[in-house]
Amino acid sequence: MSHSDTVNARLPRGFVDRGREELAASERMLSVIRHTFELYGFEALETPFIEYTDALGKFLPDQDRPNAGVFSFQDDDGQWLSLRYDLTAPLARFFAEHFDSLPKPYRSFRTGWVFRNEKPGPGRFRQFMQCDADTVGAASVSADAEIAMMAADTLERVGIPRGDYVFKINNRKVLDGVLETIGLGGEDRASQRLTVLRAIDKLDRLGSGGVALLLGDGRTDESGDFTRGAGLSREAANRVLEFTAALGSDAAATLANLSRVVQGSARGEEGVAELEEIAMLTAASGYGDGRIVIDPSVVRGLEYYTGPVYEAELTFTVADENGRPVRFGSVAGGGRYDGLVGRFRTEPVPATGFSIGVSRLVSALQLVKSPLVTGAHTPGPVVVLVLDRAETARYQALAGRLRQAGIRAETYLGTSGMKAQMKYADRRNSPCVLIQGSDERTRNEVQVKDLIEGAKAAESIATNAEWKAARPAQFSVPESDLVSAVQSVLARHFE
Amino acid sequence: MSHSDTVNARLPRGFVDRGREELAASERMLSVIRHTFELYGFEALETPFIEYTDALGKFLPDQDRPNAGVFSFQDDDGQWLSLRYDLTAPLARFFAEHFDSLPKPYRSFRTGWVFRNEKPGPGRFRQFMQCDADTVGAASVSADAEIAMMAADTLERVGIPRGDYVFKINNRKVLDGVLETIGLGGEDRASQRLTVLRAIDKLDRLGSGGVALLLGDGRTDESGDFTRGAGLSREAANRVLEFTAALGSDAAATLANLSRVVQGSARGEEGVAELEEIAMLTAASGYGDGRIVIDPSVVRGLEYYTGPVYEAELTFTVADENGRPVRFGSVAGGGRYDGLVGRFRTEPVPATGFSIGVSRLVSALQLVKSPLVTGAHTPGPVVVLVLDRAETARYQALAGRLRQAGIRAETYLGTSGMKAQMKYADRRNSPCVLIQGSDERTRNEVQVKDLIEGAKAAESIATNAEWKAARPAQFSVPESDLVSAVQSVLARHFE
Repeated sequence: MSHSDTVNARLPRGFVDRGREELAASERMLSVIRHTFELYGFEALETPFIEYTDALGKFLPDQDRPNAGVFSFQDDDGQWLSLRYDLTAPLARFFAEHFDSLPKPYRSFRTGWVFRNEKPGPGRFRQFMQCDADTVGAASVSADAEIAMMAADTLERVGIPRGDYVFKINNRKVLDGVLETIGLGGEDRASQRLTVLRAIDKLDRLGSGGVALLLGDGRTDESGDFTRGAGLSREAANRVLEFTAALGSDAAATLANLSRVVQGSARGEEGVAELEEIAMLTAASGYGDGRIVIDPSVVRGLEYYTGPVYEAELTFTVADENGRPVRFGSVAGGGRYDGLVGRFRTEPVPATGFSIGVSRLVSALQLVKSPLVTGAHTPGPVVVLVLDRAETARYQALAGRLRQAGIRAETYLGTSGMKAQMKYADRRNSPCVLIQGSDERTRNEVQVKDLIEGAKAAESIATNAEWKAARPAQFSVPESDLVSAVQSVLARHFE
Repeated sequence: MSHSDTVNARLPRGFVDRGREELAASERMLSVIRHTFELYGFEALETPFIEYTDALGKFLPDQDRPNAGVFSFQDDDGQWLSLRYDLTAPLARFFAEHFDSLPKPYRSFRTGWVFRNEKPGPGRFRQFMQCDADTVGAASVSADAEIAMMAADTLERVGIPRGDYVFKINNRKVLDGVLETIGLGGEDRASQRLTVLRAIDKLDRLGSGGVALLLGDGRTDESGDFTRGAGLSREAANRVLEFTAALGSDAAATLANLSRVVQGSARGEEGVAELEEIAMLTAASGYGDGRIVIDPSVVRGLEYYTGPVYEAELTFTVADENGRPVRFGSVAGGGRYDGLVGRFRTEPVPATGFSIGVSRLVSALQLVKSPLVTGAHTPGPVVVLVLDRAETARYQALAGRLRQAGIRAETYLGTSGMKAQMKYADRRNSPCVLIQGSDERTRNEVQVKDLIEGAKAAESIATNAEWKAARPAQFSVPESDLVSAVQSVLARHFE
C-alpha cells in the first residue's frame, strides 16, 4: 500500500526498535553488571554521544570490520563532529580533560550506545550497546589481573555457569618479541609488521593454513582476489604461527612455550613476564581453576592494543547455520592501550579495560536460561472493559483503585464493542478483565473474568450452549471487594 | 598548557559529561516513573537515535526555540538521516510501521536522549533526556484525562508533594473558536492565525501588554528591533487575551468564562465540551482537588497541538538570578497531536501524550529533597593500601574477600607511597583503609583505619606527637575477622 502523499514509515538499515521484554532483559542484566563493577570500586560515567572528531581520533579495535566508519558532520562553526564509535575514545578525552581533579589510578565504567557507519548485516548493526570498564593511570599488570577477575565475576553474576566461560589473555609484547626475533623489529619494518598483524588477525576465519599464506607470498580467496602477503620466509612464518599455537596444558606449560618463542628479544621476555605475573595474581585469588587462562591464540585487537589483550569466550556450543555445533564464542574483549590518553598530553598515560557486547551477552543468557533475561512471566495489565462510554469515569475509577493496590490496570479507550475489547485484552496478555454492565452497576458489582482460567476451560467445553450455561472462570463481586478478587486471580496464576 | 602535537581534550558546546551521583539520581527517578507508567498499562519502547529525515518530519513544539534545528547527514546511498529531536516523531513512525500488529489503542512510553542542533545556553543543551508517555489510536478525551492523572501520580511518586504541583490543561480548539469569532477562520486566514498563535506563545516572556502589541500593529523590543503584529483590532485582540485569562475560581467558573468567549463557534464549543469532560473524568477519580486544573493560560505548544494541551507546573518558589522568588515552573508538557501519525497513513490516527524534561525534574527533586535524588550517602570503596608491591596478590585477595561479602573494595594500583595512597583514599570517599605491613603480614593481621572516625578525632587532637601516641580510629584484627571488622566500621557510620 503506497500513497504518493504519505511518508514511508521505515528505519534505515542497521537500526532496530526494541520492545518491552528485550528492554527489561537487558536492563536487568546491566544492573547486575553495574553492581559488580561498583563492588570493584569502578565509578559510573556517561559521556555525550557527540564529540569533536579529532578528540575521538580513529581507534577501532576490530580489524575484521574493514569498512568501519564513523558518522560525522560539520558544526555551524565548521568544526567536524562525530557520533562516538566506542566508549574508550571518549573516556580518554574525559580523563585528559579532567586530569587534575580525578583520583589516579581512575577506575571507570560506562554503558551506552555506539555507532558505526558501515554496512550492516545479520547481527551487525549500525547502533549497538557496549558496557565498558577501564582503569586509567595504572601501568602495573595488577590492573590487568583485576580486570580479568572482575570480568569472570561479572559473567557468573549474570548467570553464565563456571566452566561455561573462559577469560583468555594474550600479550602484544610477546608478538612484538617474536617479530624482533625474525628480524622485523625497527622503525623501517613498521609496514611489514602491520601486514603480519593483520594476517594473524584473520586466524579465526582462515585458519593457520590461510594465515601462513598471508604471512608468506600471499593468498588467493574463493572469488579469485589475490591478497599480497608479508613476504616472510617459511621459517619466520612458522615462528609467528608457533606463537599463536603456544597454548599448553596449564599456565606453566604455556609460559614455557612462549619463553622459547621469544628467546633473545627483551620486549618479548617482558611480555612473557607480564603474563606470568597475571597468572600468579589471578591464581592467588583463586581464578587459576580454568576461569582465567593465558592463551596466545587470542589475536583479535593485537594491532590496536599495546600490552595484555583479553577475550571472554563462552565455551558451550550452539548450532551454526548448517546445524553443526560450534562454540558460542566471544562476548567481551579488551586490553591495554597505553597510547590513547597520551594523544592529549605530553606524558604517557597507561590504561587498560574491556568491553562487553551487550546484545550478544543477552543472547547468551537466553541460551543458558539465566533468570535475569527469562524473568518470571509478568502478567499484562487488567483491562476494564467499557460497555457504556457514558460511564467511562466510573470505569477509570475502578482501574485507579487497582493501581493504588499496585496492580497494573487500564481502561479500554477505543470505540469498539465487547468482542473486540476481549480480543484487545488477549493481545495485552491480560490475566483478567473487569465487566460492569447496567445490571452490575445498579448493584455496585463487577464481573471478574479470569482469562487464563477461561482459556483452560475452553479446551474442555465442547459447545457454545454448554459454555454459556457454565460461564467458567467468571464471577461477580461487590465493588468493595474488587482489589482482593483481582489479587486472588493473580495469585492463582503467578503466585 | 598547549602543545602543537597534542589534541585538545574538550567537548563541543552544549554537551556535558555526567558522573556517578547524577547518573544514580536520574536512574532512581526514572525507575519510579517507568513503574508508574507500567501501572497504567503503558509499554516500554526504545527506538534508535537515527531515522530517515523525512520520517521524522519537523514537528518541534517549542516555538520559543526559534533556531531549533536537527543534526542531519547523508547516508551512503544519498538519503538524509537525522538524529531524533524528540521521542514523539519516532513513535509516530513506529506506530505507522507496525500498525497491523500493535494493540489499538496503543499506550507507549519511551525514555532517552534527544538532540537539537541549536545555540546552547545556560541550562539549554544540544543533547538532553526526555521521558514520554503517549496513547495512540484513542480519539476520546478519556485518554487525555488518563494522561493527566498519570502525570499527577508520577510527580507525587517521585517526591513532589501534593500542593506543590498543578497539571494544567488548555485546548487548542477553544483558541481556534476564539479566532473564528473574530473573523480569522477559513483557509485564507491561516498565516494571520499563525501570527496570533506565535504572539500568544510569548505570553510568559512578554506579559499581556507585549502580546497585545504583537496582536495589534507590532512591537519594538529593547534592542530597537520591530516585530510586525497580527493586525487585529483592539477589540479582537482583547478577545484573544480574554481567552488566555479565562481562569476562574474553580473548573465551573473557568468553563463558563470559556463558553462566553467562544460563543457562536462550533469548534470553540466542542473544545469547551472536551475540557468539561476532562474536568468531570478527573474529578470522578479524585483529582479535582487542585491537582488537575483547566487553565487557559497554558499557551506553550498551542501551534503544534490539535486539541487538549498540558503543562505540569511546580508551584513552589525558587530564587531567580536577581534573588527574587519565582515559581519553579514547568517540568513536563504535551497535548493531543492528531496529525502526526496520519502523515504515514491515509486514515487519521488520533494521539495524545506528554513529555518530562528529565534533568529539569531531577533539579526540582533536589530542591524538594526527594530521597530519590538525595539518596542515602553511599560510602566509597574500602581501599587496600599497597605497602609492598611484591605482595599485591595478597592485597588483591583481601579486597576480593570484602567483595564476596558485598562490600565495595579496591586495591591501590598506582606507584605512590603511603601518604599519597591515604590522599587517594580520601578522594575516593573511602570509609576505611586496610593496611598490612610486613609485621602484620607475619602475624596474619590487618590494620583497619576508620577514616571517618579519624577525621572527627583529628579535630580534637592538637599535636602530631599526641596523634601518634593515640592512633585513634585504627585497630588491628586477624585476617580471618577482616569482613566483620569492616562491617562494624560501615555500620557505625551508615547504620
